[in-house]
Amino acid sequence: MVGYSEDKAALQTRLRRIEGQVRGLERMVSEDAYCIDVLTQISAATRALQGVAVALLGGHLAHCVQDAMIAGGEGADAKIREANEAIRRLVRS
Amino acid sequence: MVGYSEDKAALQTRLRRIEGQVRGLERMVSEDAYCIDVLTQISAATRALQGVAVALLGGHLAHCVQDAMIAGGEGADAKIREANEAIRRLVRS
Amino acid sequence: MVGYSEDKAALQTRLRRIEGQVRGLERMVSEDAYCIDVLTQISAATRALQGVAVALLGGHLAHCVQDAMIAGGEGADAKIREANEAIRRLVRS
Amino acid sequence: MVGYSEDKAALQTRLRRIEGQVRGLERMVSEDAYCIDVLTQISAATRALQGVAVALLGGHLAHCVQDAMIAGGEGADAKIREANEAIRRLVRS
Repeated sequence: MVGYSEDKAALQTRLRRIEGQVRGLERMVSEDAYCIDVLTQISAATRALQGVAVALLGGHLAHCVQDAMIAGGEGADAKIREANEAIRRLVRS
Repeated sequence: MVGYSEDKAALQTRLRRIEGQVRGLERMVSEDAYCIDVLTQISAATRALQGVAVALLGGHLAHCVQDAMIAGGEGADAKIREANEAIRRLVRS
Repeated sequence: MVGYSEDKAALQTRLRRIEGQVRGLERMVSEDAYCIDVLTQISAATRALQGVAVALLGGHLAHCVQDAMIAGGEGADAKIREANEAIRRLVRS
Repeated sequence: MVGYSEDKAALQTRLRRIEGQVRGLERMVSEDAYCIDVLTQISAATRALQGVAVALLGGHLAHCVQDAMIAGGEGADAKIREANEAIRRLVRS
């Protein structure tokens, strides 16, 4: 079972809304909307995506990583390294 | 005429691809994909969105802002302030 | 003359404050401060640095880039490309 | 004992180098260095600070959070919430 299972419906709702935001961006560009207005919407969609990432990471720490830590051993170390790499990519994206 | 007109088709292609990435994220979540894999895809979509934003801003500087600067006066100052606010939102999103 | 000249004193004050924040971080680590408190201070210092960058970029657009645009020709294009690269690095840092 | 203790010397070295980078920025501004060159250095200092944050967070997960998870109970939940808030601030800074 994956870490986000309990919030699956909420995550899907957030992602569908982001998909709608991106479709809105395509419409704005096709209608020659003002660049700055398009940029404002891109910032909003980016923040929404980052919000989903932070929520996923929280679920991951609270489930997958915690389970591995309680089980102990090399599995826990691997999970922490993996979570760390994900955080690094997130901070730099 | 807006600043991104000449690259309109390219921008739309990039945005459609990002829409596909977000739909891929929804599918991953619905199929209980591993959190870290979902996070990797979110980082990729975020980077792609930021890339569109940087391209838009470049077109905006090269067209709207340049036109206003050549025309001079308060219009140019307003455009610079506006571009600056967009950069600030982008850096913090 | 560079674009930030008129705000030079203000920029120096902001940078000196950031230098103080980084020295504060060294002190926190040497005193074994709690990781999360150190992270909070790193976020504050990062935001302050990004704020200086946005201010510098604003001055750059309003002076160097505007001068080049009014002069026209290839110099303006080069300035815009250069500003764009700086924005790209800033967004990804 | 805090989570970063074993890497304390390495963290201090990194922070001292960042302090030097910020002092370099002050010098650049006082010598009227070209804005774009200052921005390049700000991006480097920002990336270095974010790198320290990711390292600290990794140590925190591998020590403080792991200890709390193994101990179990509400302490573990509180640590995860706290780490999550730190990640959120980091991603948005």
